[in-house]
Amino acid sequence: MKRKTFITSADLVAAAGLPFGEEVQQKKLRHQVFFWLKNPDSGDDKQELIKGLQTLAAIPVVKQLRIGVPATTEKRDVVDNSWQVSEMMLFDSLDDQKFYQEHPLHLAFVKQFSHLWQRVVVYDIME
Amino acid sequence: MKRKTFITSADLVAAAGLPFGEEVQQKKLRHQVFFWLKNPDSGDDKQELIKGLQTLAAIPVVKQLRIGVPATTEKRDVVDNSWQVSEMMLFDSLDDQKFYQEHPLHLAFVKQFSHLWQRVVVYDIME
Repeated sequence: MKRKTFITSADLVAAAGLPFGEEVQQKKLRHQVFFWLKNPDSGDDKQELIKGLQTLAAIPVVKQLRIGVPATTEKRDVVDNSWQVSEMMLFDSLDDQKFYQEHPLHLAFVKQFSHLWQRVVVYDIME
Repeated sequence: MKRKTFITSADLVAAAGLPFGEEVQQKKLRHQVFFWLKNPDSGDDKQELIKGLQTLAAIPVVKQLRIGVPATTEKRDVVDNSWQVSEMMLFDSLDDQKFYQEHPLHLAFVKQFSHLWQRVVVYDIME
């Protein structure tokens, strides 16, 4: 007798040994960047920078790329929400991060879009 | 005839529509925190804070918890590596973040461990 088994996405993820909705738990270099635009109120400049950041996903060592904006959480002294756009990437290693820094697509991004920002802060985090 | 199919983890993840080794691509609130210790050179204080941060994983709305230290990437003007410990959490919503802020385990963490740090900076990122 032929049986059909209905498997949900959650089952598949569980079967694959991955925590649902989370990253695989392995040591990673998290590259977290915040941009302050020259024109912080310009929606066009924000969208242009976001489009530029999306081009970085094509760099093979970039294991994840997330682009963000400040969340509207409650105002607290410790919360810095003065930036306009953020970028988060995961790398497998320090070498991969170096490869990324020197990759033509990254250099092209800086050349083409750096006129949009007045300040950038980078946090390189080993987790 | 009975057939056996050998399916790899990667197949399962692909079948589930998830990018391998990455988070599920859905809108998230990323809560990224950096701590500057009162005693930045104290390994004991660093380990104590890391142990404290680990208790936060028990709060049900915390969908992911990653604790980090500065990566030894190349020194660049834009890279801030003056902090000692970082914490990254994902929440499903603004409400979950608020629930977390007010959760007894979070309040207990602040009460018990805040003597260790001189400065904390929080970035709440909607991605």
